[in-house]
Amino acid sequence: MRIRVINPNTTAAMTASIGAAARAAASGDTLIEAVQPSFGPPSIEGHHDEVWAAAGVAEQVRLGEAGGADAHVIACFGDPGLHAARELARGPVIGIAEAAFHLASLVATGFSVVTTLTRTCVIAEHLVLQYGFERRCRGIHGTDIPVLELDDPRSGAFERILDSAERALAQDRSGAIVLGCAGMADLCASLQQRLGVPVIDGVAAAVKLAESLVSLGLATSKRGDYAAPLPKTYAGWAQAMSPR
Amino acid sequence: MRIRVINPNTTAAMTASIGAAARAAASGDTLIEAVQPSFGPPSIEGHHDEVWAAAGVAEQVRLGEAGGADAHVIACFGDPGLHAARELARGPVIGIAEAAFHLASLVATGFSVVTTLTRTCVIAEHLVLQYGFERRCRGIHGTDIPVLELDDPRSGAFERILDSAERALAQDRSGAIVLGCAGMADLCASLQQRLGVPVIDGVAAAVKLAESLVSLGLATSKRGDYAAPLPKTYAGWAQAMSPR
Amino acid sequence: MRIRVINPNTTAAMTASIGAAARAAASGDTLIEAVQPSFGPPSIEGHHDEVWAAAGVAEQVRLGEAGGADAHVIACFGDPGLHAARELARGPVIGIAEAAFHLASLVATGFSVVTTLTRTCVIAEHLVLQYGFERRCRGIHGTDIPVLELDDPRSGAFERILDSAERALAQDRSGAIVLGCAGMADLCASLQQRLGVPVIDGVAAAVKLAESLVSLGLATSKRGDYAAPLPKTYAGWAQAMSPR
Amino acid sequence: MRIRVINPNTTAAMTASIGAAARAAASGDTLIEAVQPSFGPPSIEGHHDEVWAAAGVAEQVRLGEAGGADAHVIACFGDPGLHAARELARGPVIGIAEAAFHLASLVATGFSVVTTLTRTCVIAEHLVLQYGFERRCRGIHGTDIPVLELDDPRSGAFERILDSAERALAQDRSGAIVLGCAGMADLCASLQQRLGVPVIDGVAAAVKLAESLVSLGLATSKRGDYAAPLPKTYAGWAQAMSPR
Amino acid sequence: MRIRVINPNTTAAMTASIGAAARAAASGDTLIEAVQPSFGPPSIEGHHDEVWAAAGVAEQVRLGEAGGADAHVIACFGDPGLHAARELARGPVIGIAEAAFHLASLVATGFSVVTTLTRTCVIAEHLVLQYGFERRCRGIHGTDIPVLELDDPRSGAFERILDSAERALAQDRSGAIVLGCAGMADLCASLQQRLGVPVIDGVAAAVKLAESLVSLGLATSKRGDYAAPLPKTYAGWAQAMSPR
Amino acid sequence: MRIRVINPNTTAAMTASIGAAARAAASGDTLIEAVQPSFGPPSIEGHHDEVWAAAGVAEQVRLGEAGGADAHVIACFGDPGLHAARELARGPVIGIAEAAFHLASLVATGFSVVTTLTRTCVIAEHLVLQYGFERRCRGIHGTDIPVLELDDPRSGAFERILDSAERALAQDRSGAIVLGCAGMADLCASLQQRLGVPVIDGVAAAVKLAESLVSLGLATSKRGDYAAPLPKTYAGWAQAMSPR
Repeated sequence: MRIRVINPNTTAAMTASIGAAARAAASGDTLIEAVQPSFGPPSIEGHHDEVWAAAGVAEQVRLGEAGGADAHVIACFGDPGLHAARELARGPVIGIAEAAFHLASLVATGFSVVTTLTRTCVIAEHLVLQYGFERRCRGIHGTDIPVLELDDPRSGAFERILDSAERALAQDRSGAIVLGCAGMADLCASLQQRLGVPVIDGVAAAVKLAESLVSLGLATSKRGDYAAPLPKTYAGWAQAMSPR
Repeated sequence: MRIRVINPNTTAAMTASIGAAARAAASGDTLIEAVQPSFGPPSIEGHHDEVWAAAGVAEQVRLGEAGGADAHVIACFGDPGLHAARELARGPVIGIAEAAFHLASLVATGFSVVTTLTRTCVIAEHLVLQYGFERRCRGIHGTDIPVLELDDPRSGAFERILDSAERALAQDRSGAIVLGCAGMADLCASLQQRLGVPVIDGVAAAVKLAESLVSLGLATSKRGDYAAPLPKTYAGWAQAMSPR
Repeated sequence: MRIRVINPNTTAAMTASIGAAARAAASGDTLIEAVQPSFGPPSIEGHHDEVWAAAGVAEQVRLGEAGGADAHVIACFGDPGLHAARELARGPVIGIAEAAFHLASLVATGFSVVTTLTRTCVIAEHLVLQYGFERRCRGIHGTDIPVLELDDPRSGAFERILDSAERALAQDRSGAIVLGCAGMADLCASLQQRLGVPVIDGVAAAVKLAESLVSLGLATSKRGDYAAPLPKTYAGWAQAMSPR
Repeated sequence: MRIRVINPNTTAAMTASIGAAARAAASGDTLIEAVQPSFGPPSIEGHHDEVWAAAGVAEQVRLGEAGGADAHVIACFGDPGLHAARELARGPVIGIAEAAFHLASLVATGFSVVTTLTRTCVIAEHLVLQYGFERRCRGIHGTDIPVLELDDPRSGAFERILDSAERALAQDRSGAIVLGCAGMADLCASLQQRLGVPVIDGVAAAVKLAESLVSLGLATSKRGDYAAPLPKTYAGWAQAMSPR
Repeated sequence: MRIRVINPNTTAAMTASIGAAARAAASGDTLIEAVQPSFGPPSIEGHHDEVWAAAGVAEQVRLGEAGGADAHVIACFGDPGLHAARELARGPVIGIAEAAFHLASLVATGFSVVTTLTRTCVIAEHLVLQYGFERRCRGIHGTDIPVLELDDPRSGAFERILDSAERALAQDRSGAIVLGCAGMADLCASLQQRLGVPVIDGVAAAVKLAESLVSLGLATSKRGDYAAPLPKTYAGWAQAMSPR
Repeated sequence: MRIRVINPNTTAAMTASIGAAARAAASGDTLIEAVQPSFGPPSIEGHHDEVWAAAGVAEQVRLGEAGGADAHVIACFGDPGLHAARELARGPVIGIAEAAFHLASLVATGFSVVTTLTRTCVIAEHLVLQYGFERRCRGIHGTDIPVLELDDPRSGAFERILDSAERALAQDRSGAIVLGCAGMADLCASLQQRLGVPVIDGVAAAVKLAESLVSLGLATSKRGDYAAPLPKTYAGWAQAMSPR
């Protein structure tokens, strides 16, 4: 099985670490292709970054379909371009936010999200509502660590996330923590050990859900809302992206 | 990995067919134990049947824990005893209704449920609400086929379910069908082929979700709501079920 | 009128005090039968206890029906077995949680629940949602007093509940307090006097609602969702509970 | 116990029949005072009628308080002036719409409302939402019988309501019928007999709820939202209504 | 264009200042008529005041219709009598609470309301729910400044509102402030300057919405729910208000 | 005042007709700039088209800000790129879907949407939920007229929309119609005349809301969720779009 894991931003180091997290979660016979768009923001920290990231995801799903990917994962916690990707793809497409929300709901009656910038909490809130987790998700907490500093040991990211998670568990009366950024995948095991509750990384969660769907023969429904894009010729530099 | 699949009713033929469906979905290195309670209803077709089935599930999870099961699946569409089972189990516990709802949400913007008796639709409605799928689930349709006639070719079950599903897709503007009874697992592939949309059987869905969680090291949260039952001595014939 | 008040746990002292609370609330011509199951947990402090209590409630409603009860009350704040009991009963069946929520909604724009163990708050939350009180119920507060210590003067139960209620009124901007355990019935009048707001005990509330329904000729609807259980033979020790 | 039942319109014949329905429901030791405002609309068939009816209800609750009423019932299905009445009253105040919704929820998993003019359905919808019954109330159906023709045998009111209720039960998959007008109280018993499901008349329901609350010592909370109106002098002809 | 701005209370000084706020917001060719009822409360600080204010609004809309008003504004934050006014009016009728909620939703993902008496917060909560802003409105905060002291420099109203708004922005994670009383219109510009976020005064907002609707040829729908009141003769002093 | 009206697709004829509709709605002293992106889909009929349209909107808002626009309107019914545009803009940004929903809510208790392709109904549903109109919007109806045929007299578009609207009003019990495509602006007046209820075109609605906000000094909140995009360098051809 080939799963194309798309890092919607253009930072190669992050693509590499997302790929590693995906491979660590994947079954032995799953091939993970970790890719990134040819254009767009180096990190996704707001709605404007997300608009361009969504276009980049569409670019990469189109290539994935051409290359025979069995499934796609969108590895940014805002799930940018998810619906468009599902129109393009024959197989399943999984966003890491939805993946994490779904799995967290299976191990706890309520969960809290710990994310990077407070200004992006509203993006998670909108997803929580659209996906139907507004009663399961008991809190969304910004740590105000910039995405590209998550890997920097000097940023103190681990301790700040740990601290935010501990407060979230107590204050929200939650039973699990969802990590609100693909860049936090590395920290997942250590956080789970320290917190003593399930900690869900969306990258790993999405890989398992994609594998599950493919192995069950379940693909994106092409009836109605996710039917293939209607063929038309796009203008300007987007012409190469025209649906056919 | 050992997954204990509990048929909450006491009909051995149904336990066997559920076991077969689970094994068909499971990965090569997963061992499926298909079991049923030592007591209770032969089929679950209402709230009263469900109360006893929930107790039977608790009996079987307790045995599963003693026997070292890595995860449990509750193979009745009402997910009887789910919360109690999560208190008892260290690993994940998945109900087939929730499993089907979660996977259906990943392949379609909306789904419809086709189930057996109309009188049990309210059970599914209550689960849909509790789990947060009230906007994703666009309809729940009873066919009024008794559970134990699903296997009987003379019941015309397949055609009636197919017909109900086709009407549901059109009327609810849905993109996927969820089968509302563990006894429908056999029909899943044929229905999917005929309908041309994803058809989700909860038994298979739950097995894959259980495997996913176990392989990610995600177990039921023991903080708070699903902590182990408090030790106390139960009275009467339930004494053997006393939490210790 | 004969109302069968079922204490779903097996602690006789608690059955007696629930019976006393029910009699204090009942009209002169109402006969209260306070009973408990022949099996199950001595107190209900989690989902596992509740599963067995629900079965015990079914046992007792069956006996109540045979004995000609006009109505049933389920005297545990999780309303265990409520839907099953309604299938079994011809007359009304009232849970004390729902009874308290309904009456509280008639005397205040919002109420707070003060209960025993924090781990059981999620049970109340699920009921609040299922019954439609999620906007009326402004908070659910655990005091972490074990159920069987409520009567013990050394537990300081009264002061702890009073303190929790006072904080709830202020913090939740509530106008009334709902007592979240049948074992708190004794404390109701004193709490109301001290707090200066309506304090609702579900046992008394349920008795009055049962009397009201019976006197109006309103019984559980037998059309559809609460129709009598389908006749079938249960296996094992549950055989005696088989619906006929 | 003295319960003041206020017909919010000014049609004396309707006040008399509401009084009769209330007395039929009341306990032996309850005194029913059926009254109507000194001003306002002869029937309430829209929001404009309702504004004046609400003022009339306030007039009558003020008189009831002066006269020592233990509780008030507002006998129009829009519950006009309910919140204001609760500010004025020391004892409980019950609207017939809320009363009917509460009792219907105790005997069925879902109910349908059958009312008079279709244009008033939106009033009931707003109440259903405010009170939290939006999942329990499965449909609101106008019959377009004018309120003051309900009593007229030539209007065919009974048959039209029966027909509408039968269709509602089937279409909404409901288990009970709520009568959406105080003027339908007479028809309640016959409808229940014909339909074979619980039929709830709000006048009777409200009387029993008022009796229940009074006998339990539960009065309108005076903390916060329903505190007595602040003393001030009203201008013009409303001066006599100034809170003191 | 003639817009009739109704101050629902009977304090002439407040009518004058509301008129001034409305004129400051209005376009050059809009004529603002600021009026008040001939009867009723001098300030609206609870449900009882509101009942009489709603009747006063009906009186004034009736006169406005007779006088050829193109639109009406109801200048009290509880939007008293809004639905009745829409039945009476041919043109649009806008309440200042709804106006402020609508405009706030266009400039921020979430807003907080700062109002006068805490006891009136529940009125705003009911409107927020009825209008559908329950996810946009992140908090409603009482300052407990009496309405008629808003203008009194000795009341310290400005500082108290400023302080409450600052805390609301931080605590609710809001991006805008809605002023919860027509009497706060004067303070709007200064508050916006001090707070650095949009501050919405409902009077100005309602005037612009009324102008917008009139200029687009959009009037209150007369199909169904807001059809003109049915002609009937009201009793007593309300007779002059009888719909014809 | 200068309002930049962005047609998110790249069909110049549609930009022109949207510009005409905007100018017809605008006040005398408002300058309408009707523009379209330099790239992207010629019509927006699904999620994939929308992703590229959102990027095009961002391009045009960036140019509008550089050019001193006082406000922006996004003239496609899916409101593509709305949140990103609000990050970029200092003044207000209004989507035509939200504009239409807001104004429709002021003239009717419920409205129905009539749109082009059925497959895009889900886009409107997601907006309805995100904006909070799920109770006000009583139905969304596809006519399956392709966007670019709306202007073609041979498509019979007017009659099909009229027919769909008439059925929607009856079936949904709605009081107003919202046109679900910017390309329907031309038809608005005729439809309103034929239907006898308010018909809301989002382009006109958005222009009036933008004018209202600008004239009140209300701009997009820059506190928190809509703060300016963080400066960073985008990769590839998106480099020119990098926030600074």
